[in-house]
Amino acid sequence: MPKDIITPRDKDYSQWYLDVIKAADLADYAEVVRGCIVFKPNGYAIWEHIQKALDERIKETGHVNAYFPLLIPKSFITKEAEHVEGFAPELFEISSIGGDVLADPYVIRPTSETIIGHFYAQWINSWRDLPLLINQWANVMRHEKRTRPFLRTAEFLWQEGHTVHATEEDAERETLMILNDVYTDFVENEMALPVLRGRKTEKEKFAGALRTYTIEAMMQDGRSLQAGTSHNLGQNFAKAFDITYLDKDNTLKHAWTTSWGVTTRLIGALIMAHSDDEGLIIPPRLAPIQVVLVPIFKNDSERAIALEAAAKLTAQWKGKIRFKVDDRDYVSPGFKYNEWETRGVPIRVELGPRDIEKNTVAVARRDMPGKAGKVFVSQESLTEYLVELLETIQKALFDRAFQFRADHTFDVSNLEELKVAVDQGFARAYWAGTTEDEDRIQTEFKATVRAIPFDQPTQSGRCIVTGVETTQQVILARAY
Amino acid sequence: MPKDIITPRDKDYSQWYLDVIKAADLADYAEVVRGCIVFKPNGYAIWEHIQKALDERIKETGHVNAYFPLLIPKSFITKEAEHVEGFAPELFEISSIGGDVLADPYVIRPTSETIIGHFYAQWINSWRDLPLLINQWANVMRHEKRTRPFLRTAEFLWQEGHTVHATEEDAERETLMILNDVYTDFVENEMALPVLRGRKTEKEKFAGALRTYTIEAMMQDGRSLQAGTSHNLGQNFAKAFDITYLDKDNTLKHAWTTSWGVTTRLIGALIMAHSDDEGLIIPPRLAPIQVVLVPIFKNDSERAIALEAAAKLTAQWKGKIRFKVDDRDYVSPGFKYNEWETRGVPIRVELGPRDIEKNTVAVARRDMPGKAGKVFVSQESLTEYLVELLETIQKALFDRAFQFRADHTFDVSNLEELKVAVDQGFARAYWAGTTEDEDRIQTEFKATVRAIPFDQPTQSGRCIVTGVETTQQVILARAY
Repeated sequence: MPKDIITPRDKDYSQWYLDVIKAADLADYAEVVRGCIVFKPNGYAIWEHIQKALDERIKETGHVNAYFPLLIPKSFITKEAEHVEGFAPELFEISSIGGDVLADPYVIRPTSETIIGHFYAQWINSWRDLPLLINQWANVMRHEKRTRPFLRTAEFLWQEGHTVHATEEDAERETLMILNDVYTDFVENEMALPVLRGRKTEKEKFAGALRTYTIEAMMQDGRSLQAGTSHNLGQNFAKAFDITYLDKDNTLKHAWTTSWGVTTRLIGALIMAHSDDEGLIIPPRLAPIQVVLVPIFKNDSERAIALEAAAKLTAQWKGKIRFKVDDRDYVSPGFKYNEWETRGVPIRVELGPRDIEKNTVAVARRDMPGKAGKVFVSQESLTEYLVELLETIQKALFDRAFQFRADHTFDVSNLEELKVAVDQGFARAYWAGTTEDEDRIQTEFKATVRAIPFDQPTQSGRCIVTGVETTQQVILARAY
Repeated sequence: MPKDIITPRDKDYSQWYLDVIKAADLADYAEVVRGCIVFKPNGYAIWEHIQKALDERIKETGHVNAYFPLLIPKSFITKEAEHVEGFAPELFEISSIGGDVLADPYVIRPTSETIIGHFYAQWINSWRDLPLLINQWANVMRHEKRTRPFLRTAEFLWQEGHTVHATEEDAERETLMILNDVYTDFVENEMALPVLRGRKTEKEKFAGALRTYTIEAMMQDGRSLQAGTSHNLGQNFAKAFDITYLDKDNTLKHAWTTSWGVTTRLIGALIMAHSDDEGLIIPPRLAPIQVVLVPIFKNDSERAIALEAAAKLTAQWKGKIRFKVDDRDYVSPGFKYNEWETRGVPIRVELGPRDIEKNTVAVARRDMPGKAGKVFVSQESLTEYLVELLETIQKALFDRAFQFRADHTFDVSNLEELKVAVDQGFARAYWAGTTEDEDRIQTEFKATVRAIPFDQPTQSGRCIVTGVETTQQVILARAY
């Protein structure tokens, strides 16, 4: 079992990302199914922890889960004009069932606004039926020309919330509540990743939305990754699918709908934001294994003693720490250290004959490789020490990512500065440009307006493309 | 809001089933997507509880979850001869992606042995890689001519376990362990449904399996419902997909694989086994809402008092009972009682002005409608009373189903008796017949051999079709 080679980040960030995934055994390419990957157990386990933490938040804010059909009549997609324009080139089409060719084809859902809208129209009658707050965990498919594991795959997993409200204000409140209380809270506190919150421009908004809000996270190469979006769909889908309700005033009104989603690309964000040249780093709260205990032994009798001591120690961890005892006898401790480092386990505990004698263990932090992150701890207080250290690491990862973003965010006042800035990170600029200006920026600098941040300046400045005085700032960056 | 009408079971069991689903708001027909349903929040919540309880058992027995592509190259399906014969008529075929017609079509997975086998062949090298124990939660699609909500739908949700072993014995042990320790334990203890365990005949086994084991549950019309299956696939798929490993003796060997699954049809089983002419009955352990508290009030001031008392009571329930306080002020208590009865909530607690005065509540059991199941309980000991009553109801439902099955299982010694028996329930018969005999029985009596039970007689008897003396008994029944 040779060590997997990980290309250093500063040599080739893109290759580093793929190497980290391979070394941590997170995914496999599915060449036989164009653009798809296999979510291997190590990768899928991270998704399960993401799901659990998100699902709790989604339910706490009053939503329930449901499940709608995978297939959508192709005609549904065309009912909302912007929607079909956005999604038509990405559709997987079903032509035959059990050998019979279909007159009216289906498509695999690229997103479910249309099919869900069809049912909501039947379910909603009166203002008493509102708000309707439903979420779905599902797979979706979109054709992608260039794919990257987790970040951009033809099939991906996600949750998609679809809600219906009586008024525009209610829909807007829901859209922002999801962005703030669910997505931002989750990504910052569980993924240890600070996000930029804001609104998308007309060019970047969801096909069919009135307004799209986004959370954007900075990766270690300075690029932005859209980590979640929340859409106020206005009455666009309500009108296309005739979602109406009888209001208190006894008049029939079109409802207002929202949709919002995060996907398995969050796994990609987690990898790219925190990992280092040794491999994966998983924030403790999402780590399937938080602590690995490596017993050290040279022979069978030492092994028996070490495993007994390990069992005694870990008995106290149950229910408090997700752990694994690596009791393999056919690889060396050094090999194990390396393997668990590569796989991103936040804490390694080493337990050798001398430790057992001295009633100590060695504790190594994944986020601080080498001697700096290694200490000897008494076995007496070990459980509390580890529980606390997990929180310390969680915070350290957030702080590091926060500092990195601060160091790589630049105020720019002209296109020359923009060019330099987007090579390194986020560019903050005054902006009064049009969609055409955005297109031009994208062509010239391969950067896009990632968000119109909620935090806006109190003073005005000159737009970097038009020179017009404006109070609106945007964040531009290259994006995944 | 008129009361949904539920057809009595003895008038039309089939219509009763559909009425119960409608009244409890568990699903919606998706006419626009042939053979599919929407799992509405009330129905999906039951699935979430099933998933949680099953996933725990699957993990406790050493398995990990992963996710493989939805699409399978059509050519993969044909690699295992029996498999393609079984599944070809059921396939949904993808003809084009983003408008481009595909030369090599994909199918939507009807089950994933083939695509997973393809990857396992690449992942497994040595005996050290075995056993490989992976499970997947996913949607699958199979064309069905006659569909019924939950029981038989074109798209359904399931878990499919796929494991690889070094020897036939290991594969057989896994296959049976899943049937006994995971499926039987889950269905009997969580769903309160006794199961018959046994092996499928050659005619009834999974397309491509060496041996298929099944758990069969009796519904209230005496029919059998296959609640879960576990397959020892032998070396069939290992040979078709070249899953080999280098053994300790340094020779390359084909591995042995298993697969096993349960689906959303378990929701159908739960409904049909326990519910009554009033509507749904959900076993407490799987009930999304275990106790509903209905405060009774005639005016706003009574309402305030009742809600305050309700809040005080339910504060003690948190973390112990999944509950809901129905505080709606625009429907009567009677309407609420009926609605929660229809929706299968195991216990209803009524709290009126007189109860508040007397420091009592009325507690009504869903499994014993009317006065027989209603008692007054002191508020002091209410939490413990409810926790215990939930277990009592869980057991009562199991016992009732067990007794029903005992009363509807008949020993038959000829075809005349068989005919009478399968009209009412299970027929236990000596059997030495062939597949052709099974075909004939199916045509004549609309009954199939559901299982060759693990429990076999010590004495021999005459086969009901051939008259040959045999020690093998089977269970025949009509089936869902």
